[in-house]
Amino acid sequence: MKQYQIAVLEGDGIGPEIIREGVKVLRAAAEIGGISLGLNYYPYGAEHYLKTGEILPDAAIREFRDSNAIYFGAAGDPQVAPGILEVGLILKIRFDLDQYINLRPIKLYPNVWTPLKTEAPIDFYVIRENAEDFYNGMGAIFRSNGQRDQTHHCEMSMKRVPYQINMTLDSRMDASDDYAVAMGVITRQGAERAMRYSFELARAKGKKKVTAVDKVNVLPHVYGLWREVFAEVARDYPEIETENSFADATAMWFVKNPENYGVVVMPNLFGDVITDLGAEITGGLGFAAGGNINPKGVSMFEPIHGSAPKYKGLNVINPVATILSGGMLLENIGEQALGELVERAVTEVLREGRVRTKDMGGTSTTSDMGDAIAAKVRELGRS
Amino acid sequence: MKQYQIAVLEGDGIGPEIIREGVKVLRAAAEIGGISLGLNYYPYGAEHYLKTGEILPDAAIREFRDSNAIYFGAAGDPQVAPGILEVGLILKIRFDLDQYINLRPIKLYPNVWTPLKTEAPIDFYVIRENAEDFYNGMGAIFRSNGQRDQTHHCEMSMKRVPYQINMTLDSRMDASDDYAVAMGVITRQGAERAMRYSFELARAKGKKKVTAVDKVNVLPHVYGLWREVFAEVARDYPEIETENSFADATAMWFVKNPENYGVVVMPNLFGDVITDLGAEITGGLGFAAGGNINPKGVSMFEPIHGSAPKYKGLNVINPVATILSGGMLLENIGEQALGELVERAVTEVLREGRVRTKDMGGTSTTSDMGDAIAAKVRELGRS
Ligand SMILES: CC(C)[C@H](C(=O)O)[C@@H](O)C(=O)O
Ligand SMILES: CC(C)[C@H](C(=O)O)[C@@H](O)C(=O)O
Repeated sequence: MKQYQIAVLEGDGIGPEIIREGVKVLRAAAEIGGISLGLNYYPYGAEHYLKTGEILPDAAIREFRDSNAIYFGAAGDPQVAPGILEVGLILKIRFDLDQYINLRPIKLYPNVWTPLKTEAPIDFYVIRENAEDFYNGMGAIFRSNGQRDQTHHCEMSMKRVPYQINMTLDSRMDASDDYAVAMGVITRQGAERAMRYSFELARAKGKKKVTAVDKVNVLPHVYGLWREVFAEVARDYPEIETENSFADATAMWFVKNPENYGVVVMPNLFGDVITDLGAEITGGLGFAAGGNINPKGVSMFEPIHGSAPKYKGLNVINPVATILSGGMLLENIGEQALGELVERAVTEVLREGRVRTKDMGGTSTTSDMGDAIAAKVRELGRS
Repeated sequence: MKQYQIAVLEGDGIGPEIIREGVKVLRAAAEIGGISLGLNYYPYGAEHYLKTGEILPDAAIREFRDSNAIYFGAAGDPQVAPGILEVGLILKIRFDLDQYINLRPIKLYPNVWTPLKTEAPIDFYVIRENAEDFYNGMGAIFRSNGQRDQTHHCEMSMKRVPYQINMTLDSRMDASDDYAVAMGVITRQGAERAMRYSFELARAKGKKKVTAVDKVNVLPHVYGLWREVFAEVARDYPEIETENSFADATAMWFVKNPENYGVVVMPNLFGDVITDLGAEITGGLGFAAGGNINPKGVSMFEPIHGSAPKYKGLNVINPVATILSGGMLLENIGEQALGELVERAVTEVLREGRVRTKDMGGTSTTSDMGDAIAAKVRELGRS
């Protein structure tokens, strides 16, 4: 019997209840597939932080490295200032484990209400580069203290798995004002692996086109390199059509003609904003799954949504995003068929339309949805 | 008779034909209001650049300073590399004239098709900070030339009307790779004037809430200062509700509940992306007007859309965005009543629904729409 070790982080708010349903479905799939899943729960998140002051110890990262994958619920609580858990927990895992691909399928499932009038099928992939761009935390606030023309000095560094970048910045404003700076970085290697993954995904999934998003007309250095690398990598995939699109136009096209996309590769920050939009046009965050992937390492799967503290414990939140993320997890650890089984079960339950959570205009609970999908996994898996 | 001097830049592609209709309506309004508009045409844009190598001479900027406003069509052509006209023409005007407010009304007019199912009224304002953030062009590409651990040095500067910032950056990557950096800046003064304008606009337009957008959880320095200033300025407007929203969530809410917004203030780059989305939900770029405003200086009014070269000369493009921008121009030069008249005329013509351009599912031409709105301005203005 194949054995897998999964690190599970339920996190905060609705985290535990959606992960509970996700685990239910994973167990059903494991049973069908005759595999064993060892689930190792970790307590990290807002509650743990408020109690202990600890966000995520390096020892945990070491244990994650020995896992086959990480299953993550959601983190965050109004009592914790913005940034602390995002940087110390979520981004730390993404960066330390070099999960440089954020794979976010944008797919409209049957019977799911979309705010868009279009009835065209929506089914494409966003690859959000997940390790660079404006996500490295480099920056500083310079206080003028009322003095003109002060020189400010700051040291910044960005550590990624294959390298570290160290910078020193000296800055002088010829006036007296407080100001703050932020630094973004794109590396050739970082862009190249994201591009290559995108073209390979297009091939694997039979998508005809890869669209690279940027704003090179305003940020010529970072996105100039981004475009250069895109064009180079594209040469290795002559059968796949390519397209460059500005981020602003992309936001428009996501609403106007989402059926036109195949694979869309985006820098980290635009990817963050535009994939939330992608989630919204396909029924909202209740349906938006994601994977933070290191193709040669340990990956983390999580719904795109947050911890929604005000719904905590109410058993009303739609667990489909988490369940689909679990399906992606199975695919990622090598259980392709089981991953597909989970997705088929979700599709079937949604198509039947008997179980509908609140966001779907129904009254079914979080557990009802998990139960129905787990049952469907067994049903489809046995037949 | 009051006299105004307006600098007119038609630009490229469909620029001339939409400006022609915009001018038609401006003239009708001027006639009604008994004012004189001196229109001074400038040839800048792709064609002029390709012919002469000149983008925008400083002499033109000096003449703009002596104008009451600038009326801009659209610039850009596939023969010119991305960035050249954006930076050398559009951003140069915005920055040199310190047009630090980009005012973009998000309004759904009667009979305008929206891709959203919602029938709630959409009518709010985005203030996009227009002089800072990631729009200053500061950055560099560092080539490794195959050598490890090279130190790269670059000097960057950002010149804005009240000050200049000079920076030197030394950077070292402990590996060999090409990489590129980009630097964003938020100043207290820059944020404060955008915030203050937003609250004043909320007051003037009777909006109950100002929402400030950022991504402070990932970019704590620049958006930390941004939030700090927002909270400070808010204290002067106790009757106005305030809200902080992450950029990713904002993109979602624009589609989910656009009726919930009053005034939304955004940093430059998020504002760029999310206002295109705002345009799309209110019928597309054919309806999206904008003003680049310096409240104490010379402002520029332009539709949000680009030059759409493939429609050039076909007389099919919807000129409403340009006409509404003209209405904003009138309001800005002090002719409030005439500005409102133009907006009422647009609303009335759209409500009647007899003239519908191609994007509205009709067959009316660009000129038909301009004619109808100009006639309506005269009709309403006389009654
Ligand atoms: C929580 C936050 C750091 C994160 C991000 O910005 O990447 C989230 O918005 C997401 O999209 O996964
Ligand atoms: C042309 C470009 C520089 C510009 C911008 O990014 O601001 C445009 O997209 C806009 O929104 O007005």
